[in-house]
Amino acid sequence: MKWVSFRTGKYDGYGVYDEQKQLILDVKKMDEQRNGYSDLPEQLVEALGLGDLFLQKVHTLLNWEQGQRNRPWAFKWEDVELLAPIPRPLKNVICIGKNYRDHAVELGGKDGVPEHLIVFSKAPTTVTGHLHPIPAYTDVTEALDYEGELAVIIGKKGKGIQKEEALDYVFGYTIINDVTARDLQKRHVQYFLGKSLDCSCPMGPWIVTKDEVPDPGNLGIETRVNGEVRQKSNTRHFIFSIEEIIETLSKGMTLEPGDVIATGTPAGVGLGFQPPKLLKAGDVVEITIEGIGTLKNQVQ
Amino acid sequence: MKWVSFRTGKYDGYGVYDEQKQLILDVKKMDEQRNGYSDLPEQLVEALGLGDLFLQKVHTLLNWEQGQRNRPWAFKWEDVELLAPIPRPLKNVICIGKNYRDHAVELGGKDGVPEHLIVFSKAPTTVTGHLHPIPAYTDVTEALDYEGELAVIIGKKGKGIQKEEALDYVFGYTIINDVTARDLQKRHVQYFLGKSLDCSCPMGPWIVTKDEVPDPGNLGIETRVNGEVRQKSNTRHFIFSIEEIIETLSKGMTLEPGDVIATGTPAGVGLGFQPPKLLKAGDVVEITIEGIGTLKNQVQ
Repeated sequence: MKWVSFRTGKYDGYGVYDEQKQLILDVKKMDEQRNGYSDLPEQLVEALGLGDLFLQKVHTLLNWEQGQRNRPWAFKWEDVELLAPIPRPLKNVICIGKNYRDHAVELGGKDGVPEHLIVFSKAPTTVTGHLHPIPAYTDVTEALDYEGELAVIIGKKGKGIQKEEALDYVFGYTIINDVTARDLQKRHVQYFLGKSLDCSCPMGPWIVTKDEVPDPGNLGIETRVNGEVRQKSNTRHFIFSIEEIIETLSKGMTLEPGDVIATGTPAGVGLGFQPPKLLKAGDVVEITIEGIGTLKNQVQ
Repeated sequence: MKWVSFRTGKYDGYGVYDEQKQLILDVKKMDEQRNGYSDLPEQLVEALGLGDLFLQKVHTLLNWEQGQRNRPWAFKWEDVELLAPIPRPLKNVICIGKNYRDHAVELGGKDGVPEHLIVFSKAPTTVTGHLHPIPAYTDVTEALDYEGELAVIIGKKGKGIQKEEALDYVFGYTIINDVTARDLQKRHVQYFLGKSLDCSCPMGPWIVTKDEVPDPGNLGIETRVNGEVRQKSNTRHFIFSIEEIIETLSKGMTLEPGDVIATGTPAGVGLGFQPPKLLKAGDVVEITIEGIGTLKNQVQ
């Protein structure tokens, strides 16, 4: 199942995307039509907090709606503006640094390969959607770079999660572009500021639920800039698996539904080339992850 | 004016603390009594987003309530459980690292003094209130430490803020204890994980509005552990002033009402002593900032 958040006119909604029919089924509107009212939250991130009850309710609604003729909850794909599936996370996006060996080496040499998880964050104001522009910020940075990444969306609250049960806490997967101002990242030592320019975290186009991603540790990932392949790898090259990431993060910190964990980027970032291939206005960045989809944004 | 958030039974409210009468005046309840309903938000952090309109409304309510005999909106200080003034920030707490020269030297030698702002974050799940326990986390860390800090609460949305106008964007000030697991901080390179144990960010006891803090760049700050003075400094020893911090942060990142910016800690953290004086269960940490108050928590 593919989950999207979208805007049409002044209305923001969320729903299931039927790729074959190119329709978005707005689950809250469906619920209202069926029951006369809906107690579903306004935002997907809040709905995730309802846990299994939410998905059970959605399955009931989807079964019911197939028999309906009039379907005011169905929006044509081309008629809506897609938002990030979680347009405003309830905390910073949690990011894992240097989680592919080849990328750790490209930026820091052999000593750059971490023995322990590196974790930093991006402010929620960085999040933007598929096809939305990435500002070039020429007044703030001279070294804007891309980082294609698989992101995990947490679906269940947990602390002290063991890696054997870690995937039980996952709702699904999406793609993010961890856009980075390399000069700010270096100048300010800790990564936060260079990672937190507004709209520097394109996310989407949708969340694919985990039942459709049988092995998130074996997915091809590719980033293209203006059609040129820059990053090409597979999540099997992770230094720390998704299960290990969840175990380490949750040791002393509660993970919550709607938390977004970006799992790190492979070799081939702009800074890794000689000379560097950094982003400039007009560049189009596309990130494709096997079984998930393609996230596309243009620098403006 | 002192702003608090509090709990009594199943009710969570926020209001103005009248220190002389030891009363908390719940502004939403006041509004309901006066007007029959209230459109004020449920949370202080949301109310801050209303900007000047919010404070104007509060002044009107406070003038009105002085003439009332029956005051169901007034709670006795000793009858409520104090929460952090912003119990759940809408993003991670923004933290400045090594912003007092003596502390930068104590942890990193003379080379430890930063030329540029160091910025990291603490997850919103770290926030806890005055008098609430700090968990010892003996299963996760062997090096729990305290850091007394002045925190700035943003009151107005802004980006590209110049330092000359920076204080216009401030709502007020509070105290935080940036509790840190030193071993995790070091092991994971980036600070986030060692700074994000649940309840490792005591905040409070209240927010003092900026009109009562004429010069936030000249406030005495003192941290005591079991009564022993460990940190004693003044915010005039900041390497980067509050105005510079706001200018640098907001260059490419929008600051929003309710954002919490912890301004860094002076020398005298536990790790700075020979041998280190780290925290253990039973220790009582008190942080006093001139013109703000005292934040007190016990390690459990």
